[in-house]
Amino acid sequence: MKILIINPNSSPAMTADIDRCAKAFANGEFQVDTVLTPGAPPYIDTYQDAALACPGMMQIVRENEEAYDAFVVACHCDPNLDVLKEMTDRLVVGIGEASMKMATMLGHRFSVISMGSRSTPIKEEVIRRYRLEDCAGPVRAPEDGLASCREEELFLDAAKKAIEEDMAEVIVLGCAGMCGLDKTMEKALGVPVLDGVTCALILASGMVKAGIATSKKRRYAKN
Amino acid sequence: MKILIINPNSSPAMTADIDRCAKAFANGEFQVDTVLTPGAPPYIDTYQDAALACPGMMQIVRENEEAYDAFVVACHCDPNLDVLKEMTDRLVVGIGEASMKMATMLGHRFSVISMGSRSTPIKEEVIRRYRLEDCAGPVRAPEDGLASCREEELFLDAAKKAIEEDMAEVIVLGCAGMCGLDKTMEKALGVPVLDGVTCALILASGMVKAGIATSKKRRYAKN
Amino acid sequence: MKILIINPNSSPAMTADIDRCAKAFANGEFQVDTVLTPGAPPYIDTYQDAALACPGMMQIVRENEEAYDAFVVACHCDPNLDVLKEMTDRLVVGIGEASMKMATMLGHRFSVISMGSRSTPIKEEVIRRYRLEDCAGPVRAPEDGLASCREEELFLDAAKKAIEEDMAEVIVLGCAGMCGLDKTMEKALGVPVLDGVTCALILASGMVKAGIATSKKRRYAKN
Amino acid sequence: MKILIINPNSSPAMTADIDRCAKAFANGEFQVDTVLTPGAPPYIDTYQDAALACPGMMQIVRENEEAYDAFVVACHCDPNLDVLKEMTDRLVVGIGEASMKMATMLGHRFSVISMGSRSTPIKEEVIRRYRLEDCAGPVRAPEDGLASCREEELFLDAAKKAIEEDMAEVIVLGCAGMCGLDKTMEKALGVPVLDGVTCALILASGMVKAGIATSKKRRYAKN
Amino acid sequence: MKILIINPNSSPAMTADIDRCAKAFANGEFQVDTVLTPGAPPYIDTYQDAALACPGMMQIVRENEEAYDAFVVACHCDPNLDVLKEMTDRLVVGIGEASMKMATMLGHRFSVISMGSRSTPIKEEVIRRYRLEDCAGPVRAPEDGLASCREEELFLDAAKKAIEEDMAEVIVLGCAGMCGLDKTMEKALGVPVLDGVTCALILASGMVKAGIATSKKRRYAKN
Amino acid sequence: MKILIINPNSSPAMTADIDRCAKAFANGEFQVDTVLTPGAPPYIDTYQDAALACPGMMQIVRENEEAYDAFVVACHCDPNLDVLKEMTDRLVVGIGEASMKMATMLGHRFSVISMGSRSTPIKEEVIRRYRLEDCAGPVRAPEDGLASCREEELFLDAAKKAIEEDMAEVIVLGCAGMCGLDKTMEKALGVPVLDGVTCALILASGMVKAGIATSKKRRYAKN
Repeated sequence: MKILIINPNSSPAMTADIDRCAKAFANGEFQVDTVLTPGAPPYIDTYQDAALACPGMMQIVRENEEAYDAFVVACHCDPNLDVLKEMTDRLVVGIGEASMKMATMLGHRFSVISMGSRSTPIKEEVIRRYRLEDCAGPVRAPEDGLASCREEELFLDAAKKAIEEDMAEVIVLGCAGMCGLDKTMEKALGVPVLDGVTCALILASGMVKAGIATSKKRRYAKN
Repeated sequence: MKILIINPNSSPAMTADIDRCAKAFANGEFQVDTVLTPGAPPYIDTYQDAALACPGMMQIVRENEEAYDAFVVACHCDPNLDVLKEMTDRLVVGIGEASMKMATMLGHRFSVISMGSRSTPIKEEVIRRYRLEDCAGPVRAPEDGLASCREEELFLDAAKKAIEEDMAEVIVLGCAGMCGLDKTMEKALGVPVLDGVTCALILASGMVKAGIATSKKRRYAKN
Repeated sequence: MKILIINPNSSPAMTADIDRCAKAFANGEFQVDTVLTPGAPPYIDTYQDAALACPGMMQIVRENEEAYDAFVVACHCDPNLDVLKEMTDRLVVGIGEASMKMATMLGHRFSVISMGSRSTPIKEEVIRRYRLEDCAGPVRAPEDGLASCREEELFLDAAKKAIEEDMAEVIVLGCAGMCGLDKTMEKALGVPVLDGVTCALILASGMVKAGIATSKKRRYAKN
Repeated sequence: MKILIINPNSSPAMTADIDRCAKAFANGEFQVDTVLTPGAPPYIDTYQDAALACPGMMQIVRENEEAYDAFVVACHCDPNLDVLKEMTDRLVVGIGEASMKMATMLGHRFSVISMGSRSTPIKEEVIRRYRLEDCAGPVRAPEDGLASCREEELFLDAAKKAIEEDMAEVIVLGCAGMCGLDKTMEKALGVPVLDGVTCALILASGMVKAGIATSKKRRYAKN
Repeated sequence: MKILIINPNSSPAMTADIDRCAKAFANGEFQVDTVLTPGAPPYIDTYQDAALACPGMMQIVRENEEAYDAFVVACHCDPNLDVLKEMTDRLVVGIGEASMKMATMLGHRFSVISMGSRSTPIKEEVIRRYRLEDCAGPVRAPEDGLASCREEELFLDAAKKAIEEDMAEVIVLGCAGMCGLDKTMEKALGVPVLDGVTCALILASGMVKAGIATSKKRRYAKN
Repeated sequence: MKILIINPNSSPAMTADIDRCAKAFANGEFQVDTVLTPGAPPYIDTYQDAALACPGMMQIVRENEEAYDAFVVACHCDPNLDVLKEMTDRLVVGIGEASMKMATMLGHRFSVISMGSRSTPIKEEVIRRYRLEDCAGPVRAPEDGLASCREEELFLDAAKKAIEEDMAEVIVLGCAGMCGLDKTMEKALGVPVLDGVTCALILASGMVKAGIATSKKRRYAKN
């Protein structure tokens, strides 16, 4: 089984982080590779960022759908996910959709921890797109603006507020670049912390094994 | 006042139809022009179609935001509307959003008449994106598959079923290419029939006159 | 084109304010007049106030439906709007409905700034009547009780809290008597501020021009 | 204990029917009287009908709030209920609210049987006002238009369709004038059939006995 | 008429409290008895508690359905209510369902005052089960953890916050063991305070009198 | 890794079917065992059935939580799932929750195919419990009453109606006993057909591998 993770941005460093986490989870039981998106901006934060990433993401799918069994879109707002689900018969899993739907199975309310408040309305629209607004607390971000992906302390502070003030029982990491922080944060917080890349790989590898893929009836019909 | 209508597809015929209807409504009281989208497919039906139209639509906005006061996106599923609202300080109005929100002011339930059932799930997602699902009956399309934009009889049949079986009280034309059919259909049906191009021009011209534009706080911040 | 604005209360001062704003917006392009409601209380705050205004409002419509093309109800809780929509073939637009539905096109969340907390539950019911509760933050009012319509400073304070604490991106003035404050508040706040009278006139004048009126099928059938 | 039933219309025959059913339920354990509404139309079907009934209903409350412990509004669309709840400290119960909320305790889905399809959108708005749309099937009415209140056969046909086609498990009589049909219809249908007058009296008499009345905090503050 | 109150826990003290309040309300007009549940835990707080109470509750219904006209389940999270509604033709009323649905008739928003924050998510699920989440503020509990049922001061503090900060207009006592506190709290708070046992008895005694019971069509069919 | 599947009923035949499907999916990559529930009825259809199965299910968890890494509840209405999630630190996955949430990732709308219409309201409550009502068409069952689990033809007929009339794009098998029918039905229907046992094993095995388990904060705190 071969799964290709598409990092919708063009950051080699974030791509490498994602790849390392993904391979750690795969543990040699299936092949997983990660590519960055040519022509995409270095970080996906806005609607324009997502739009600029789209041609490159489509090209990656076109060029790899013979070679791979499934695709994972590794940006928490699941940019262009519908386009990709439509254009290929291969399974496509978004890390936002995977992690947030899995979070609903583990507790009464989940909260997404984001990198900065700029993208909060977009993230809330994503939550709503999946009809999860009643299961989610407000998106929380470090208070002094855009964090780097690895500033664990700031995310812990935001997560603690989500747990205590918003009654969250599960934390969802709101950026693919936060992958690898889940277990240390989980230890500090005492509640499950979900990394989207891991969640998407659970679903993608399991569904490929079971022969489950996107419905090609109506909504995602290829053409 | 100058308003630019962006037809997200590349059909010159549909662009000309839209332009004629738009100029008829404007009636010389404001300037309105219509352009097709370079590089877009001839018809926007799928997620891929919308994605392929995006670069061209962004380019049109970039090149014209100095010269025009507002933009109208003239495809009923409002493709890439969020991207455009974000990228410019100018007002951007989608014909789907405009016509369906105006329809809610005129009766208990509206129904969108679509060209073919292929795009029904996408149109229902658009209805839901605007939180209008409780005001809308099911999207109706001619039963024998994709119609041409001008086959009024087929649309009348679908609209009659919407009115009688789904309790619709207002009909919304689900394609920019249907513009100009509204008044003859209205006469035949006895309920308001809304053409999205007209509705979007009402809002765009009125809001420009009043100095109202997209909020640049958070969700649609230019950045 | 002739539009009649019905101020549902009996305050001559507020009627004059509304009329001045309305004529400024109309700018001579269409005729607009404003009348107060005979027999109504001086201010509409409660369910009883709305009930007491109803006979006078109905009388105004009956006496003027020949002479005017459309009516605007100029009180933000849209009192008796359904009654008026039903009783006449002319278009009837409420300033609450117009401004709040237009606000949803401009940003992620809007907040209504009200004159006093007494009417908050009624205003929240109005928001819900239009199925806008997911697009609206809590109604905000000056904290020390009922303000006069022209106390801009108090409204600015409430609006700033709505923007910062409730994540509002658009402000809606919650009283017809606040008309004329929109542009100065907009400048101070940096987000769109919508005055209901202006919004209703945009819709009413545009729909009259396009020949659009209330559906007379079922819900608003005359009888 | 004394309860006054307000029939919002001016029909002496329907008032007598309601009074007979009410006294049968009261069974001498509490006093119940029924009055028609002076100045109201003979039947409440439209928004205008409800508006025309309002002054008379308010007058009845004003003149009787010393003498009675509670009021019941005996029209299934609960006309002017908010006005009455606001204007008096006495408990006010609507037969629509009472019967539909009680219906939700008895089965998975209820259906309202109405007298004619003219008022269906208004009845559906009432269902929605009480946030019951997910518990209710579509409102059903005899197919050949407006029935008289006593045509039990037509209502049975509509109720059977509601039970079989809409999966209703409880039937709610959608007009005060249908009171007294509940038990014979229940026998024929095999599911509970709720008469609003009875349901409202259950709640009104019980709440008066327990000393429960409308909250006068905020929404229904007398002023 | 004979009504049996089932206290789902095994506390003799709480059972006695409930019985005293119930008999006070019944006032000799109908017979009411209260039993504790054999084999149940001393307090119902968790899903396991509810599960452990189920066999005993089922046994009580089986042994008493000949002798009693209706059952009341006297724990505010209505444990095993669906099971009991299904297994008997007798009416079964839960105090949570009864009090919260009655609360919606008395004001814009109600708040449940709970004994401790441990059960908040369970209580919020109960609110949602009855589709009341839009009518309810957050569940409030004394801040320093689990209170005893009779610590009125702590409940008053929580209720005041619900009224002032959450805009509650009606208070619902979130535990059968709080019965008897309603009237003193009501006096202190100035808004209606609903005791579930009283509310359930209003409905149960009224419905028995009117011959209304659970629908045995589909959802609660005996088998 | 060791996963224990709890069949909540006491049918050895259905237990053997489930076990065979589970082992086929596991394919030797993890250990999976299946047990029936002592003291449970032979089939879980009603609320009482679920209640009767509860003590046995709790006992199974207590006796096996040392030996197994996760539990799967193999009945599509997920009986007693909350109880089990609460009582153990081990992950617990219900086949209803797993299959329906996975179905939402694969298409616009899913439909559950059930064995008989008796349990339709219960299944619809389960759909609602997971807030999936907007993603699901009506539950469909063979029209002539309760089918046996293996009557593929009847299920195909029901599924075809769901796809054509209800616009379903994904089919979910509504009974653990239908396991093994998914792939032949998928071939006949041309849309994904999800078997709950497989879906639950995908999630359970993946989450155990990733070290993800139920949150023990608040809702499912052990006590």
